[in-house]
Amino acid sequence: MRTVYLDNNATTSVDPAVVGTMLPFFTEQYGNAASMHSFGSQVASSVRNARRNIQTLIGAASEQEIVFTSGGTESDSAAILSALETQTGRDEIVTSAVEHPAILALCQHMEKTRGIKVHYIPVDPFGRLDLDAYMSALGQQTALVTVMWANNETGVIFPIADLARLAHSCGALFHTDAVQALGKVQLNLDASGVDMASFSAHKLHGPKGIGALYIRKGVRFSPLLRGGRQERARRAGTENVPAIVGFGKAAELAGSRWQQDAEHMGRLRDHLQYGLLHRIGRSFAIGDPANRIANTLNIAFEHLESDSILVLLDRAGIAASAGSACASGSMEPSHVLRAMKVPYTAIHGAVRFSFSRHNTREDVDRVLEALPPIVERLRETLHMPAQSDIPSAAHLDATQLTNVHSEVVQ
Amino acid sequence: MRTVYLDNNATTSVDPAVVGTMLPFFTEQYGNAASMHSFGSQVASSVRNARRNIQTLIGAASEQEIVFTSGGTESDSAAILSALETQTGRDEIVTSAVEHPAILALCQHMEKTRGIKVHYIPVDPFGRLDLDAYMSALGQQTALVTVMWANNETGVIFPIADLARLAHSCGALFHTDAVQALGKVQLNLDASGVDMASFSAHKLHGPKGIGALYIRKGVRFSPLLRGGRQERARRAGTENVPAIVGFGKAAELAGSRWQQDAEHMGRLRDHLQYGLLHRIGRSFAIGDPANRIANTLNIAFEHLESDSILVLLDRAGIAASAGSACASGSMEPSHVLRAMKVPYTAIHGAVRFSFSRHNTREDVDRVLEALPPIVERLRETLHMPAQSDIPSAAHLDATQLTNVHSEVVQ
Repeated sequence: MRTVYLDNNATTSVDPAVVGTMLPFFTEQYGNAASMHSFGSQVASSVRNARRNIQTLIGAASEQEIVFTSGGTESDSAAILSALETQTGRDEIVTSAVEHPAILALCQHMEKTRGIKVHYIPVDPFGRLDLDAYMSALGQQTALVTVMWANNETGVIFPIADLARLAHSCGALFHTDAVQALGKVQLNLDASGVDMASFSAHKLHGPKGIGALYIRKGVRFSPLLRGGRQERARRAGTENVPAIVGFGKAAELAGSRWQQDAEHMGRLRDHLQYGLLHRIGRSFAIGDPANRIANTLNIAFEHLESDSILVLLDRAGIAASAGSACASGSMEPSHVLRAMKVPYTAIHGAVRFSFSRHNTREDVDRVLEALPPIVERLRETLHMPAQSDIPSAAHLDATQLTNVHSEVVQ
Repeated sequence: MRTVYLDNNATTSVDPAVVGTMLPFFTEQYGNAASMHSFGSQVASSVRNARRNIQTLIGAASEQEIVFTSGGTESDSAAILSALETQTGRDEIVTSAVEHPAILALCQHMEKTRGIKVHYIPVDPFGRLDLDAYMSALGQQTALVTVMWANNETGVIFPIADLARLAHSCGALFHTDAVQALGKVQLNLDASGVDMASFSAHKLHGPKGIGALYIRKGVRFSPLLRGGRQERARRAGTENVPAIVGFGKAAELAGSRWQQDAEHMGRLRDHLQYGLLHRIGRSFAIGDPANRIANTLNIAFEHLESDSILVLLDRAGIAASAGSACASGSMEPSHVLRAMKVPYTAIHGAVRFSFSRHNTREDVDRVLEALPPIVERLRETLHMPAQSDIPSAAHLDATQLTNVHSEVVQ
């Protein structure tokens, strides 16, 4: 039985065209791009092409604004640590309560070891940033604001250009973890005002182990990895040429088709959402339905543990996720759902379905067939209370559902 | 014309068997190893196998002592920054003057920004560490000693187990950049006493963008990259599974054959060395001939610029290097050769030839044919002085040559 893979916010399959582009760089054009001989310098032009493809996809003003890293986590760390070092005399960070662990864990470490004050801006039950709290937190001490472009668990999109403008008005640098936004929404880094942005190839049918940090021209930067003078002395270490050209190819593919892909994924996502809400009572969609990336559906099933659901889905050949893979294995409910004040009856039962362009209507139908009996069976085992504290989700649309949800928690 | 690739200390071709091992992990087993579903957890066992292959090759006591990173530079940075954080109250680093830039650049940055005192231990003209200076530098303030296992430019091997023992006697942690030693000398990390060691796959016919940090069990460690709890919370970021299994395969291949490979490369290296010294006057080999890794030959041609030699070798289809690729493009002579006090008449004319198991006797013969006329032609252009300040190298063996060299500079 073919696996229905709906965990594309965790990672995606590498596009065969991307693998094909990478292959010659393993065994033929394997030179070190920093070498003197033509055997090394040949690869430099391939690296340049890749950089240009990424520049185009993210709307950077220059290819030189793109620094290749080992992935999103490294990009995030490099941005935060650089800002703390270059923004002399400023010792505060403003971020959101729903960031990826790569941001939150480093912020917490900076609080503990360097006395940095970090403001974790709350979100409302839709997952929207509390703008009043955001503006109050900004000040002359703010070295950096780091707020993600789109949330990995809910898909909720933040108003990045507005947030960047506000950050700049107090002299702070603005960084965004745009890992989940790449190839899913229109990105125009140059117009956005963002100073730094993190990207990862493997969420976009590119290879793992390669990412990028956008650094706007003129923004001072202090490298995380020092040594060789690769990447214009902004990221030391032998260039990962096969992965870089693979990332470039993935960006090129996304560039020509991301809008139709987003429409395709959005249709499948909506079909799954309405299908599940219709078939399964005491369930609701999480996150601002008016402002989500098209491929993400986070849906909560009251009184259940998502891990049990995932195990049974897995047996049915369906791969999904509870919140982010980075936190899986831990029994704590997702920090994102806690920040959204998802009711305690539902917070443990949230499942994330995330689509890619390779998913089909058949995939959705497989879930619609498999999941209702799984939920029913689990609820029977648990001797579920007959009465829910949240009205049945059936026959309500997503906006009403989220309203219901937000009424309940307030 | 087939390229004669003799720049394997910069990077190596990926073994086709390694590529073959990696391929399914791009398009089939692409799951996120941290995910709940079996689609993700399948790959976890492949990652474990890779870790065990590396454990075996480096002689670690446990596979859990191995943390995957993005490469040698990241491993070096992680080790140094961790030691400064965990060795509370100690604010000095002891290192050598001939380390890789990944060590030296970070040490210099720590001096500048954190007030860390760094002792750069000199070497003698053979490239051997000054043990008296080393012992004098060690003290109660030493947080970390970091000395490379084998030098990338000369191949000279340091007595790591002895150095580690001395470091421990004053309570310092001991780290070694073992990137150039992996698969070329017998490594027994467990017996060596080393606390942390850096490795990279792409110097060993594995892929770029993947490395490892050995962390001895019981050694406190503070991660460089924080976020997800991958690698037992010692290195955040989605596991680069294809590269990890590729590294594992490369380690497995090396494990079964590295000794015969080293003998093969040693024979080719010696053949090239004696052939060149015999054919080209005013040339000499650099580095302790009694204690070099088998694949490395650094040879200096008096009164010449290595860049000119490399360009002409390149036209003849031969890829070699001037010192490390990381420093190429800069006109400064190599810091390693400066530390060895290579005479000013020769320091600009050093060329590094570094072999892999794929090189053949034919490759050596190609160089022996191509290089003498290149040197002759360049020297004619320069109106070379008829008399050298160093006796002609012809008919002297390597030990005598190095002695001559060391007499001249003292």
